[in-house]
Amino acid sequence: MTGFRTLILVVFSVLTSAVSVPARAAPDALASWNDGSVKKAIVGYVTSVSQSGSPQLIAPADRIAVFDIDGTIWPEQPVAEVAFMLSRVKDMVVRNPDLRSQPPYDSLFAKGAEILPSLPQADILKIFVDTHSGMTEDDFTTQVREFFYTAKHPLFGVPYARTVYQPMLELIAYLRANGFKIFLSTNGDIAFARAISADYFGVPAENVIGTYFTETVEENGGRLRVVRQPKLGAYSDREGKIGAIARHIGKRPVFVAGNVGSGGDAHMARFSMEGLKPSLQILINHDDAARERAYGSDDRLSLDWAKSYGWQLVSMKSDWKRIFGANSQ
Amino acid sequence: MTGFRTLILVVFSVLTSAVSVPARAAPDALASWNDGSVKKAIVGYVTSVSQSGSPQLIAPADRIAVFDIDGTIWPEQPVAEVAFMLSRVKDMVVRNPDLRSQPPYDSLFAKGAEILPSLPQADILKIFVDTHSGMTEDDFTTQVREFFYTAKHPLFGVPYARTVYQPMLELIAYLRANGFKIFLSTNGDIAFARAISADYFGVPAENVIGTYFTETVEENGGRLRVVRQPKLGAYSDREGKIGAIARHIGKRPVFVAGNVGSGGDAHMARFSMEGLKPSLQILINHDDAARERAYGSDDRLSLDWAKSYGWQLVSMKSDWKRIFGANSQ
Repeated sequence: MTGFRTLILVVFSVLTSAVSVPARAAPDALASWNDGSVKKAIVGYVTSVSQSGSPQLIAPADRIAVFDIDGTIWPEQPVAEVAFMLSRVKDMVVRNPDLRSQPPYDSLFAKGAEILPSLPQADILKIFVDTHSGMTEDDFTTQVREFFYTAKHPLFGVPYARTVYQPMLELIAYLRANGFKIFLSTNGDIAFARAISADYFGVPAENVIGTYFTETVEENGGRLRVVRQPKLGAYSDREGKIGAIARHIGKRPVFVAGNVGSGGDAHMARFSMEGLKPSLQILINHDDAARERAYGSDDRLSLDWAKSYGWQLVSMKSDWKRIFGANSQ
Repeated sequence: MTGFRTLILVVFSVLTSAVSVPARAAPDALASWNDGSVKKAIVGYVTSVSQSGSPQLIAPADRIAVFDIDGTIWPEQPVAEVAFMLSRVKDMVVRNPDLRSQPPYDSLFAKGAEILPSLPQADILKIFVDTHSGMTEDDFTTQVREFFYTAKHPLFGVPYARTVYQPMLELIAYLRANGFKIFLSTNGDIAFARAISADYFGVPAENVIGTYFTETVEENGGRLRVVRQPKLGAYSDREGKIGAIARHIGKRPVFVAGNVGSGGDAHMARFSMEGLKPSLQILINHDDAARERAYGSDDRLSLDWAKSYGWQLVSMKSDWKRIFGANSQ
């Protein structure tokens, strides 16, 4: 009967293993967040709107979360897209050296790239339009990918892919695991962010919303192509982020993550809060001079509204155990 | 040893039951489609791009399917949104009786609603803009839902929800089961289609793309609201459908379903075909006077391109076993 006994023992062991696994603490989905009021508010909110039977339950179709990109899920000093613009200007000058003496490019070359943010708004817009239009969508995407393939973040000296905030990647995964759909909302060009959104942030291209150029459809070699025209279709910042959400999603988000910096996310945070469903707004406060930068205190609009409206202010310094992931920096 | 033997028998029976289920034919996911070249092409394409190991495999992120709405997943004679426009005009006249004598509404009231399609394009556009703007997004959505709550299809005499084509619902489900993401592309107003897309077609609001109005963000009673302005932001038909896909999805679809009728879907079918990945285009041909309508032969552009480019022409008469589901009509 040895054969039988062995079999029985094996079967017994298999059957009991299913129930005898020692209780283990669930791994912390937000492991890079310090325990504190912000983490508690996030977990409390997500639990209350996603657990069946909860009086606060929100149907999965309405669990819409919108994240700003620059300054919220990776640094915005410098904005990656501005670095891209400057690399495009270099390419343009190689092809057309006269550009070097034409405004607004002349001041850029006379005084150096760091002058860019202090140029008049119209000059910045012209450089933005010149570097972002006149090519097909496909060619633009290729240019963006080429830029990111070699570019390094000037402060951290690593590829931009390694400057994504680890706590925010965990937050995106945590929300998704609880039935939320994740959208990214940028004041930059949609196609710029879409070129890397899946690889860097785990968000598919079609869930990226933002500023876009008008386009024409042209036939070339018997093939229809989308050509980017030198005219903005919509600029997505401040109130403009609300319009972009209305056009692309058609629902008020119930979760918004933005940052304290330029004030660009405060309006979409209000838009979310003023809906009919339970909602949560978090703003990343750039207050960590040692590990990133400290400039959030300049943004009075976001700080004042956060206080008035009860949004969660995330201190990078005290709420985040680490800024970047193990493979970062 | 009886106990042991019984246990062994039970265990044996449990273990073998996992492999001894008699082979059953898989239920036909496209049960409302007749066997024929179109069904064969659809199943062949979907299998070849979604089965792992296939040389034609397309990554799930790129399995983007775009369906037109009117005439493709439900009838377009009349277009539901035109019926909605006319119901809105009636409401407007109740509030403002003078409208009855003002162009273009005067001809509508003198000659009857059926005159609408033959009015000059500018008049139709004016009625479209008047009935679709000047209110908040939320109020517009409420008006659309109210319309569908009571309206009946004039040809079939049933609520519009029951005029959805059963074969197309099966096709949407079949594609989704094989990892495709489904988008709807309408030449009508995005918000109109979004109000019913989840309930009627099983497609969430954020996956609807189409024509939209410009909007402003206004504060009212301390609450930010999106107000629809009387100016189109983009009109999404013919080439315009390609622009809408570029803005909203940012990828060439690999599967497009449109219809033979107004020619509005032919451009997006070409856009899909001219991508770098294996793709399939189907056009629903309205050739079934007995069960629906027969007017597809008027649309030379779609028919000619379908022939030149090898798209699948779906004959409603011979490719579809039934037009509507069991609960329809």
